[in-house]
Amino acid sequence: MVFFGQIYGQSLKSPNGNLEMEFSLSQAGEPTYLLNFKQQNVIKSSKLGFQIKNDSISLKDAFVVVDTKESSFDQSWVPVWGEVNSIRNHYNELLVKLKQQGTQREINIRFRLFDDGLGFRYEFPEQDHLIYFVIAEELTEFAMTGDHTAFWLPGDYDTQEYNYTKSKLSEIRGKMDSAITPISSQTPFSPTGVQTSLMLTTREGLYINLHEAALINYSTMHLNLDDKTMVFQSWLTPDANGDKGHVQAPFNTPWRTVIVSDDARDILDSKITLNLNEPSKIENTDWIKPMKYIGVWWELITGKSSWAYTNDFPSIQLGKTDYSSAKPNGTHGANTAHVKSYIDFAAEHGFDGVLVEGWNQGWEDWYGNSKDYVFDFVSSYPDFDVKEIQEYAKQKGVEMIMHHETSGSIRNYERHMDAAYQFMKDHGYNSVKSGYVGDILPRGEYHYSQWVVNHYQYALEKAAEYEIMINAHEAVRPTGISRTYPNLIANESARGTEYQAFGGSKANHVTVLPFTRLIGGPMDYTPGIFEMDISKLNPNNNSHVNSTIANQLALYLTMYSPLQMAADLPENYMRFPEAFQFIKDVAIDWDESIYLEAEPGEYVTVARKAKGTSDWFIGNVNGYDSRKTSLKLDFLEPGETYTARIYEDAKDAHYKENPQAINIRSVQVKKNSKLKLRSAPGGGFAISIIKN
Amino acid sequence: MVFFGQIYGQSLKSPNGNLEMEFSLSQAGEPTYLLNFKQQNVIKSSKLGFQIKNDSISLKDAFVVVDTKESSFDQSWVPVWGEVNSIRNHYNELLVKLKQQGTQREINIRFRLFDDGLGFRYEFPEQDHLIYFVIAEELTEFAMTGDHTAFWLPGDYDTQEYNYTKSKLSEIRGKMDSAITPISSQTPFSPTGVQTSLMLTTREGLYINLHEAALINYSTMHLNLDDKTMVFQSWLTPDANGDKGHVQAPFNTPWRTVIVSDDARDILDSKITLNLNEPSKIENTDWIKPMKYIGVWWELITGKSSWAYTNDFPSIQLGKTDYSSAKPNGTHGANTAHVKSYIDFAAEHGFDGVLVEGWNQGWEDWYGNSKDYVFDFVSSYPDFDVKEIQEYAKQKGVEMIMHHETSGSIRNYERHMDAAYQFMKDHGYNSVKSGYVGDILPRGEYHYSQWVVNHYQYALEKAAEYEIMINAHEAVRPTGISRTYPNLIANESARGTEYQAFGGSKANHVTVLPFTRLIGGPMDYTPGIFEMDISKLNPNNNSHVNSTIANQLALYLTMYSPLQMAADLPENYMRFPEAFQFIKDVAIDWDESIYLEAEPGEYVTVARKAKGTSDWFIGNVNGYDSRKTSLKLDFLEPGETYTARIYEDAKDAHYKENPQAINIRSVQVKKNSKLKLRSAPGGGFAISIIKN
Repeated sequence: MVFFGQIYGQSLKSPNGNLEMEFSLSQAGEPTYLLNFKQQNVIKSSKLGFQIKNDSISLKDAFVVVDTKESSFDQSWVPVWGEVNSIRNHYNELLVKLKQQGTQREINIRFRLFDDGLGFRYEFPEQDHLIYFVIAEELTEFAMTGDHTAFWLPGDYDTQEYNYTKSKLSEIRGKMDSAITPISSQTPFSPTGVQTSLMLTTREGLYINLHEAALINYSTMHLNLDDKTMVFQSWLTPDANGDKGHVQAPFNTPWRTVIVSDDARDILDSKITLNLNEPSKIENTDWIKPMKYIGVWWELITGKSSWAYTNDFPSIQLGKTDYSSAKPNGTHGANTAHVKSYIDFAAEHGFDGVLVEGWNQGWEDWYGNSKDYVFDFVSSYPDFDVKEIQEYAKQKGVEMIMHHETSGSIRNYERHMDAAYQFMKDHGYNSVKSGYVGDILPRGEYHYSQWVVNHYQYALEKAAEYEIMINAHEAVRPTGISRTYPNLIANESARGTEYQAFGGSKANHVTVLPFTRLIGGPMDYTPGIFEMDISKLNPNNNSHVNSTIANQLALYLTMYSPLQMAADLPENYMRFPEAFQFIKDVAIDWDESIYLEAEPGEYVTVARKAKGTSDWFIGNVNGYDSRKTSLKLDFLEPGETYTARIYEDAKDAHYKENPQAINIRSVQVKKNSKLKLRSAPGGGFAISIIKN
Repeated sequence: MVFFGQIYGQSLKSPNGNLEMEFSLSQAGEPTYLLNFKQQNVIKSSKLGFQIKNDSISLKDAFVVVDTKESSFDQSWVPVWGEVNSIRNHYNELLVKLKQQGTQREINIRFRLFDDGLGFRYEFPEQDHLIYFVIAEELTEFAMTGDHTAFWLPGDYDTQEYNYTKSKLSEIRGKMDSAITPISSQTPFSPTGVQTSLMLTTREGLYINLHEAALINYSTMHLNLDDKTMVFQSWLTPDANGDKGHVQAPFNTPWRTVIVSDDARDILDSKITLNLNEPSKIENTDWIKPMKYIGVWWELITGKSSWAYTNDFPSIQLGKTDYSSAKPNGTHGANTAHVKSYIDFAAEHGFDGVLVEGWNQGWEDWYGNSKDYVFDFVSSYPDFDVKEIQEYAKQKGVEMIMHHETSGSIRNYERHMDAAYQFMKDHGYNSVKSGYVGDILPRGEYHYSQWVVNHYQYALEKAAEYEIMINAHEAVRPTGISRTYPNLIANESARGTEYQAFGGSKANHVTVLPFTRLIGGPMDYTPGIFEMDISKLNPNNNSHVNSTIANQLALYLTMYSPLQMAADLPENYMRFPEAFQFIKDVAIDWDESIYLEAEPGEYVTVARKAKGTSDWFIGNVNGYDSRKTSLKLDFLEPGETYTARIYEDAKDAHYKENPQAINIRSVQVKKNSKLKLRSAPGGGFAISIIKN
């Protein structure tokens, strides 16, 4: 097929025919693609290519098609953990082999068209005329068909910890300044720059999600909008020299993904991002296990207690500062007795693990000074007895979770990594929460530049060698790599619950995250806050948690993760033992997941069947408007009866005015029973359905 | 003492009174110093201080003197290896404690005045008002008293591998462009910027050397000349952000040194640089031993053979490229059989070690592409049998010397360092030649920036843990750190013999190096070239070695190093067995060293007594003009007779026209015997004096 203004054109349909894409070469030899959903245009003709540094001839035109190959793929695979116990990977593929006239340089573009979206990547085969090159910019376009509504974060080289802004594309520029709130490390880059995964809705009722998959050894992609033409162009994260990527052929870029449907639930249900990653490279995965945990954490975040052990020193030089003679400040959270009380609580209530932050030397002076040797990851404070805690936890059947804050000093972390991981194995820690707060060292690099992306991957692969699970905070947002390295059990990489103690997040924040941040992989969102008035924990902190208790419970379902924290203080859970029961009961690994209702910014309702059981759990989070719904339980087994325990907002519940008002009741249900439920503003509901 | 225009002044004399310095505060509270030698001004009043980034108040004025302390020190210490078996550390010290009015910030300046020079450094004590800061520039001045003659290298953030230019200070600007010759990684920064150690001579007959000592966790200092006032100011090496250093108090800067005398020999004899470093931090130093070695190296440098194993691949991706099926290129130097022949030669002629470059995978594609994962330091080529070579060398009593070329990719080296060092220990390697050819990764950093200086130190300290000796090439020039870490047995860090195969070096180059590069520590200069016509080794290489054979022999004395190579090919040594005998005989560790004659750019003559023996060795290197001398052997033991074997330039010898013409003769000598000798242009002589 060759269309007007083109010298080449070839189309491809998805297995069920709903999606159709077309690859074309323009008269100038520019590669382009477009995408339709049910005959409706989703992505207009969009250019593909690269600007090469110090090269007068860009990799964007003068191409001819050397060869094309179409193929189909349909296989299912079993994830180590996940929302479902089997994932179907079903697509039609078009591989286009291009050669640039004159330069003889070769690029292949591989398109995979699924029923729920498109993935494509650039492949640079081994060749003589293009081996090493430096990317000045990737020129991939996503041409929108109109002035869509977007749920966007300011494009930033260092952070995604913003609230989402919902606006028309044409309004992004005007709202950018107010969208950029202060964060410990941040580098916004353009008045129309936004992050992926980007969620869009159209006037015609389409849901479109733009993201990437398999970000390995490449710069993180942002999107920059031409708000006259409504064309997004890829905007890679630069390195210290301002360059956007170093490539050595043979090389494949990450996949660029467009998930699309006329039903918002399909966006949440899509497995494109995982499917575009390679199968697991870890052979024995027995040691990778979902975990529910508590920790010495919320008391630190709220300012009730401190990471630091002493107030004696104006600054710390590890190995020179003598902690043994320092005066304890009396607020240090990670002390042995206190940690033991957490272990007791975990054992009593069936939690798998206990996280402890602030256990290691250096917290008096860890942030904001571009400090290189900030932590050594093995030296504990005088009041944290690693051995004693190890033995106590083991005796109680609880696993300790390690904490490695790097303060962005990644060379220092890599230098200590082997010793740190070995220390973990020697002391019974099988998982680590790592952190990258603050500006990156080496200086001039960003959290999302190729150099640093490469570091996260290095840490992940080395952890796999030690059989260690990783939960990386402030790292790059995930792109489905947990298929290949299932020891990446979670990330933060978005605005998590901690911001509820830093002034609060939008009450509908959690109705957006599943459409954006969670597209790439699970988030350690740390839900389960019952006391919304933070001044009750720390009189100097007037922050308010914009959420009801029912909403907090629902998060264990709507924010899918194999790692789930019960983040609040034990004493707060003891004040609400009935509500707490749900956190104790809810599963963390699943055979089946059904998105029952979804609308970004408004609500998400999901039902999940606990792995290896007949038990179901349902969660709903709700946005700013109170909402009534009726759920038909058509997924239950016929002929069986169940006890449904319902945790719902009380009539007068409200995320701000009355967040702790919750009704808890039990009803008997069976297949096709209907449940009438109401969610308050910033509220929701959680339901456990246990077979009788 | 308070002088005109000052609010404070204090002077200090060296132990013998020859040197006198004065510290003053100007009316504006600016700290300054000046230095006199035998009542003659050497350094005019020169300012001290710092420009701090993002700080309107610089650390350069508004100071008051809070306290001063004078003290004396006189102790001797025993180096693990060296030019002498005992080093006297004798100085008077003035510590000035300053406080800045308004900011309350404290700086101490510590001056140590030796009989042969001055060292001073800035010390930032622990304090509340100055903890972390970023240096925009160090403002240390060295105000010259006139338009001196300098032996200078272009100031450069990445290399010192230039020929020296001798000129008046006022001529530097005009000669800079031609002084900057192409080098694999180079970043000159100013038309009047020069490197240290800088050697100067004055019209009045003074010899002045400016350098630094104990460069640890700080940016390398260059000097920028104001060629109107003849004031040098420190110019630190920036990082990727253009910043010149990150400091956390308490912190001491490196020492800034001024060595001065009216006798050039005193410059060479000075131990200031070592004395200003800390005593050894390595307790057991039994494993640190001087070495004389040969290697598969000159054949690579000259292009006679290759580092690379194959010509099959357009580029290499370690772990993916399959060498086992690659076609050998037939020129690979580091093959087992060839290496064994070197081991045989070493064993036969009494060399301690054999270096082999190009033994590990990756050399087909190692340079110039900012390649991150360039080598793994443990995977050998198919034709290099590590085990077999290990056993063969052991059986022959020869030690193998490891080679780690990093290609400037220092993160990659650090990631592999533990495995690489362990691999060495597992395979009988106790020393490593490391290399840093090409631009540094992380990108934006320089060979001499704080980040990378920190890396060299990391490698050195980690090597010490493994009991490994380091000989680092293309690293920062040394600053006496080998006192503290005597496993730093050598560096390159200047224009070495390799350039004789890259077009040649100036014939008087080696008469300058002892006054400049060697002030900081030993150089792996790799002398001993007998075949000066490189086209005899490789018909495609027309380079000429600008040196006579006698000059080459003398280098084993004049270029002091505990690590000495016999760099030429075994077959070339076999053509000159008599001359080769000197290389076999010459010692590499010394009880005593006497500089008999010296003039930078003209000649250096040194006599050294071999450690634990009564044998002496003398070497002379000569510049462009032929020269006659008469040496009085007044250092020999009275009443003893010696056989002196003299290796001198033949009458018609000349570095260019007749470099191989050498006379070798023996004479009987005793104390106070005189030897009449003549050195050809680019020539010299070498003498062994063995007690009968």
